[in-house]
Amino acid sequence: MVERTAADSMPFSLTLGKARIEALSDGVFAIAMTLLVLKLEVPEVMHHSSNAEMLRQMLELTPAFLTYVVTFLIAGGFWFLHHLTFHFIRHVDTALVWINLVFLMLVALLPFSAGLMNHLLVHPVSQLFYYGNQLLIAVVLNVHWHYARWKKLVVGDPPEEMLRLTYRSASAAAAFAAGMITAVFLPMYSAVAFAVVLLGGVTAEHARLR
Amino acid sequence: MVERTAADSMPFSLTLGKARIEALSDGVFAIAMTLLVLKLEVPEVMHHSSNAEMLRQMLELTPAFLTYVVTFLIAGGFWFLHHLTFHFIRHVDTALVWINLVFLMLVALLPFSAGLMNHLLVHPVSQLFYYGNQLLIAVVLNVHWHYARWKKLVVGDPPEEMLRLTYRSASAAAAFAAGMITAVFLPMYSAVAFAVVLLGGVTAEHARLR
Amino acid sequence: MVERTAADSMPFSLTLGKARIEALSDGVFAIAMTLLVLKLEVPEVMHHSSNAEMLRQMLELTPAFLTYVVTFLIAGGFWFLHHLTFHFIRHVDTALVWINLVFLMLVALLPFSAGLMNHLLVHPVSQLFYYGNQLLIAVVLNVHWHYARWKKLVVGDPPEEMLRLTYRSASAAAAFAAGMITAVFLPMYSAVAFAVVLLGGVTAEHARLR
Amino acid sequence: MVERTAADSMPFSLTLGKARIEALSDGVFAIAMTLLVLKLEVPEVMHHSSNAEMLRQMLELTPAFLTYVVTFLIAGGFWFLHHLTFHFIRHVDTALVWINLVFLMLVALLPFSAGLMNHLLVHPVSQLFYYGNQLLIAVVLNVHWHYARWKKLVVGDPPEEMLRLTYRSASAAAAFAAGMITAVFLPMYSAVAFAVVLLGGVTAEHARLR
Repeated sequence: MVERTAADSMPFSLTLGKARIEALSDGVFAIAMTLLVLKLEVPEVMHHSSNAEMLRQMLELTPAFLTYVVTFLIAGGFWFLHHLTFHFIRHVDTALVWINLVFLMLVALLPFSAGLMNHLLVHPVSQLFYYGNQLLIAVVLNVHWHYARWKKLVVGDPPEEMLRLTYRSASAAAAFAAGMITAVFLPMYSAVAFAVVLLGGVTAEHARLR
Repeated sequence: MVERTAADSMPFSLTLGKARIEALSDGVFAIAMTLLVLKLEVPEVMHHSSNAEMLRQMLELTPAFLTYVVTFLIAGGFWFLHHLTFHFIRHVDTALVWINLVFLMLVALLPFSAGLMNHLLVHPVSQLFYYGNQLLIAVVLNVHWHYARWKKLVVGDPPEEMLRLTYRSASAAAAFAAGMITAVFLPMYSAVAFAVVLLGGVTAEHARLR
Repeated sequence: MVERTAADSMPFSLTLGKARIEALSDGVFAIAMTLLVLKLEVPEVMHHSSNAEMLRQMLELTPAFLTYVVTFLIAGGFWFLHHLTFHFIRHVDTALVWINLVFLMLVALLPFSAGLMNHLLVHPVSQLFYYGNQLLIAVVLNVHWHYARWKKLVVGDPPEEMLRLTYRSASAAAAFAAGMITAVFLPMYSAVAFAVVLLGGVTAEHARLR
Repeated sequence: MVERTAADSMPFSLTLGKARIEALSDGVFAIAMTLLVLKLEVPEVMHHSSNAEMLRQMLELTPAFLTYVVTFLIAGGFWFLHHLTFHFIRHVDTALVWINLVFLMLVALLPFSAGLMNHLLVHPVSQLFYYGNQLLIAVVLNVHWHYARWKKLVVGDPPEEMLRLTYRSASAAAAFAAGMITAVFLPMYSAVAFAVVLLGGVTAEHARLR
């Protein structure tokens, strides 16, 4: 499990293997993402309900389904970015462990934020909280990545791919900030603002990096 | 944990190690399968309930138990097929990660689909949704496998075993499609249609491959 | 993750690596064991409740706490025996994967069985189900272990330690069978019957093996 | 996954690999920490609720949020200390496995203890239980660490870092004991007592070790 390298024999206040922080992270992501399904309440239908009645009840779940799909995929995207940062990170120090614990605390909050959105897709307060949660995740991910680079915990190459990751993390944060601000004034269009900024970020990345 | 090979030093937009996508998948499968038990509600019996009364209440849970056993084993089967594809897959690219996230999103939906079936084993709408969920899982598994082969992310040999896997994934999709179609017209016999097509697929596989 | 050995390059219908079945098993055990806590309902007390009132409500949870502790540790014991079998098992075949999936299905049922016991520690029907669930787990564990030895999927040495494991798995099954039978006639003393048989098994093991 | 060393070929009653106990531990920690979110109940607001009304309902959740954040980070701290002990532990024996299972049983109880605190932050009985649970976790962690050192299951060096770990585990236990005692007499100030003792422990550690 724990692969021993030269750095591992150094005192743990300096550097640590990364295997178990990855294992804890994968666990928290897998559970938070799967718990989202518990917010989809099975309609209380009877055996003698007509097909039309059941279909109507299923259709009422549409906003909850939409929230499930979107939140699962956003969480998956954060998992992927987190995965990529650890592709470059070689060792972790105590501060990086704590940054990661705060990151995971915010990820584990997603089933609550998604639950808020289930019946209230266009309500400013639930949107503020939902985008705010995602924004905090993105901000802590950026802190995690810049801290690791600043402390030279990453492998040096290839610089271009690391720059790409920096772009992507920053774009995610910007897009969630845009969604959050729009939610206060125009909750109907917050998803549009989010998508436009994310797309802008991806385009800028492509323009700069091949 | 992270085994380093030549390909790992390539930019992550090309190829990635597969260890963490496997870890996330095992986590989502383990949680989705274990959450099925939460749909088995403990009967609200009293200390002074007679044995006959308690047995009667336990027997009322029979459809829920049946759904638990069948769904757990079907999910286990999908986990096994997914496991086998990764036996051959050497590296993952960005598109494969996203295909896998969609796959896991559908797997994590199983506790909801199973919850629908608990009291409504023979209702067309709940059956449509249940078989539909499983069918989508099977379809995305096929997409995942064919994409990996098309992009040459798999090891080349042994071809016979890979063909066997292709057969099995396709049989699963066909069987769930059969169940789904029958559910609309004859919900009473959808399980029969499912079993017949699955058996046909297995027989065809044996006929072709030794 | 997947360590490559000579056997791994054989077709998967013959032998498979064991890493992912271990990962799925650890996941299901960890979740089933942790979900037990959801059966401990937080008493609905008010801010102005007196200390005496709150203590009384906490004490009412005693049978639920007892069930939590006992079930967690029994599940931990099964996890340990399962872990030990995989210490000797080198590869898995398709049948062993399915035996394991049935094993995990029974493990994942524990939160339900424990829920039955919460208010009904001495009721024959809940005891029958509880001991029955544990007995089935023990039986399938024995099947798993004997199948692996019969199919020569285990490493050959050291024979004494493998015999010890055979003793332990059989003792567990015998003890749960004793509890189950006693539950029908004397539910008050089923735990005693269970403990006596388990102790007998451990003593016999020590007598035979050093 | 399973790294083979000389010691692994010894009978399992002597020494065992540590990979799977780490995997089970990471799983239980990840689940217990993520289940904390289920204690945050989504307020039952309507689509037509005013923003002021929704904000008021969100603010009522403040104690529950505070409990969530504090408990998640404390659990993360325990995970980190547990992780560090396994950084030095080379092999596990049967007794250490059982000590770890008791440790995990107490960790899995955290969602219940946190649930008690949600509406009752300053109630002596809920505080007693909450600090008591944490204290037991800290005590068993100390037992685990001293047992492993006593049985020579750890690598010998570097002694200074191991001493630091001993200090930290002991400080955690002392701080929770302080919180627990203060909870009985002055529940309003138990968090202060906890923080003061923890800070004292950290200061003593720094004074002694560089």
